[in-house]
Amino acid sequence: MPLIDRDPLLLTPGPLSTSLRTKQAMLHDWGSWDAGFNAVTAEVCRQLVEVVHGDGSHVCVPLQGSGSFAVEAALGTLLPPGGKVLVPNHGAYCARILKILATMGRQAVELALAEDAAMDPAAIDAALAADPAISHVAVVHCETGTGILNPLADIAAVVAARGRRLIVDAMSSFGAVEIDARTTPFDAVVAASGKCLEGVPGMGFAIVRREALEACAGRSHSLALDLHDQWQYLQRTTQWRFTPPTHVVAALDEALRQFQEEGGVAARGARYAANRDRLVQGMATLGLAPLLRPELQSPVIVTFHAPAHPAWDFGAFYRGVRERGFILYPGKLTRIETFRVGCIGALALHDIDAVVDAVARTLRALGLPTHA
Amino acid sequence: MPLIDRDPLLLTPGPLSTSLRTKQAMLHDWGSWDAGFNAVTAEVCRQLVEVVHGDGSHVCVPLQGSGSFAVEAALGTLLPPGGKVLVPNHGAYCARILKILATMGRQAVELALAEDAAMDPAAIDAALAADPAISHVAVVHCETGTGILNPLADIAAVVAARGRRLIVDAMSSFGAVEIDARTTPFDAVVAASGKCLEGVPGMGFAIVRREALEACAGRSHSLALDLHDQWQYLQRTTQWRFTPPTHVVAALDEALRQFQEEGGVAARGARYAANRDRLVQGMATLGLAPLLRPELQSPVIVTFHAPAHPAWDFGAFYRGVRERGFILYPGKLTRIETFRVGCIGALALHDIDAVVDAVARTLRALGLPTHA
Ligand SMILES: Cc1ncc(COP(=O)(O)O)c(C=O)c1O
Ligand SMILES: Cc1ncc(COP(=O)(O)O)c(C=O)c1O
Repeated sequence: MPLIDRDPLLLTPGPLSTSLRTKQAMLHDWGSWDAGFNAVTAEVCRQLVEVVHGDGSHVCVPLQGSGSFAVEAALGTLLPPGGKVLVPNHGAYCARILKILATMGRQAVELALAEDAAMDPAAIDAALAADPAISHVAVVHCETGTGILNPLADIAAVVAARGRRLIVDAMSSFGAVEIDARTTPFDAVVAASGKCLEGVPGMGFAIVRREALEACAGRSHSLALDLHDQWQYLQRTTQWRFTPPTHVVAALDEALRQFQEEGGVAARGARYAANRDRLVQGMATLGLAPLLRPELQSPVIVTFHAPAHPAWDFGAFYRGVRERGFILYPGKLTRIETFRVGCIGALALHDIDAVVDAVARTLRALGLPTHA
Repeated sequence: MPLIDRDPLLLTPGPLSTSLRTKQAMLHDWGSWDAGFNAVTAEVCRQLVEVVHGDGSHVCVPLQGSGSFAVEAALGTLLPPGGKVLVPNHGAYCARILKILATMGRQAVELALAEDAAMDPAAIDAALAADPAISHVAVVHCETGTGILNPLADIAAVVAARGRRLIVDAMSSFGAVEIDARTTPFDAVVAASGKCLEGVPGMGFAIVRREALEACAGRSHSLALDLHDQWQYLQRTTQWRFTPPTHVVAALDEALRQFQEEGGVAARGARYAANRDRLVQGMATLGLAPLLRPELQSPVIVTFHAPAHPAWDFGAFYRGVRERGFILYPGKLTRIETFRVGCIGALALHDIDAVVDAVARTLRALGLPTHA
């Protein structure tokens, strides 16, 4: 196959294919002490709070690093000494929260759940009723490991009714699935630049209830990951505490402009949902079935069962689709053989048609069946 | 003044002015699971080890986030339980190490030093002799707060002779000042993408002695900042543990290519030293004197005494030079009024001449003297 010097499209849960406008925003060098850059930071933070309707009640604290850094920072900053966290676990990113808590030496209670079902608010309610020492609940909104979207508003209502606090990893849903701070009580929602906001990776952020954050001075186990310190410094100086990833911030600012132009959460979520539906339909014509029932399926990423055929080899399949211009993602389930296809990023329906076509050609080239 | 749409030049200790080639490397989206990207990571790490001649003995562990994240990660990963760290302190970044250790709850001994002198290896030797419980020494190579370059090889010799371990914050010197792992014993040297390597900010890295790192499983106070875990995962999978800042990594790869083309550490250090000398000479004609004696002065950043004149106002001075196309940096000394000018980044001698000219014009506009 001739070498075509064009980037493959990313059908992954991030990093994503971003628009050229977003990448071109990185063709500038910004001084991190300069008022020009600090105005960009302030505007990005203002918009991020607005995405979840948290104006007035919540603040945005940006943090250098990947999304997991921000998740750890939120847990380490918000949990009081002696705090105890309930973690409903139905996938890889729930498990990561448990690992973060264990590493920090914090008390955690795992609520083990089936990995092919959404979190049941009643089960969370029962776990809270059974253990009054639990102070916080930490949940993943969209479990990217499978693609399941959890009923966040219902979970938040249960947690609030029991007088406990909620910390949400909304890494792969923020910006594509509605989260409303006015009606969904939470202490923190954590996400990152390089997911549904379609920026490039390199920073995370937490949208934190101001009153909760105000109580958190000196709690963090880490200086770098101390969200209270970062917030105080930003408020006092308008600057990040340590060198910000200036180009990543500038790209996010430009990505947010396009996010608003597209029509915000509703429009972005609708585009992704249309991508997902087209993908599931297209793959069905090739005999490839999704893991999840439709009502569980987020618009973010779809897990497909691998063909039950002796010639199946994920590596060969990945490389075949890659050579045809598309990057897919491996499965993250331990017992069932799967692969994943992302629906997010600067992708339109015709891109989805093209990836389904590339999958069909690859399956044929590998001697695998391509019919339902 | 008409608005000219061109980026100001950054005369700061990072973020820096980078080359267009480096920024253009960010016009691509990379899959973080893809072999193409993982080859970039491997090549970047290989070159970073080579910069300090650590091939075979040392490994590079890259880390998302700013430089301070990598400093905290190195301390948190390498210090054993019960470890005790001597921190010679003559400036802002030494103080940051103390703050990191305090936040992590680690034992630290401060060796308070004058802020206008280099660290004296004999003083470090005496402190180690006095306290056999000290297991590690953590030093800053170039204290960017003032611009002082410390005698790293001599310090390392003293620490090794006393059988203690050395952790070096070489954030602002790595790539411009020679560090030789073959003759300078250290457990870790920490730096970042956006300093003398002239990449963009967004990742740090530690060059760690392999044998030391091998002993560090499960030591870190933080999952995100666990360098041992990051290293193990990279070795096993060729991938970063959590989403890498793909565009920042690609920019560093391109920046390293230019670093090699320029002639590596010797050539880069020579260019910066020439920038510094030209700057100090030019500012002298305006009556602006550096804080430091020449033998202490790094080629990285120069601290100047502010004019002793009632009309002096750093904010007005900064904005005046800014309007003329250059971004300077505030001083970081507590008792003396100073400002700083960086010598690093994609800057040539004619840029230094231009900044001196902009300083002269600004001083005149503000009614300040411009002669020695
Ligand atoms: C739900 C969820 N949580 C956390 C993360 C971790 O983010 P990162 O890889 O940026 O650390 C991801 C990444 O995809 C995610 O999807
Ligand atoms: C010597 C030194 N150490 C640490 C840092 C902190 O790096 P960052 O701001 O990237 O966290 C700097 C930043 O300039 C530095 O010069």
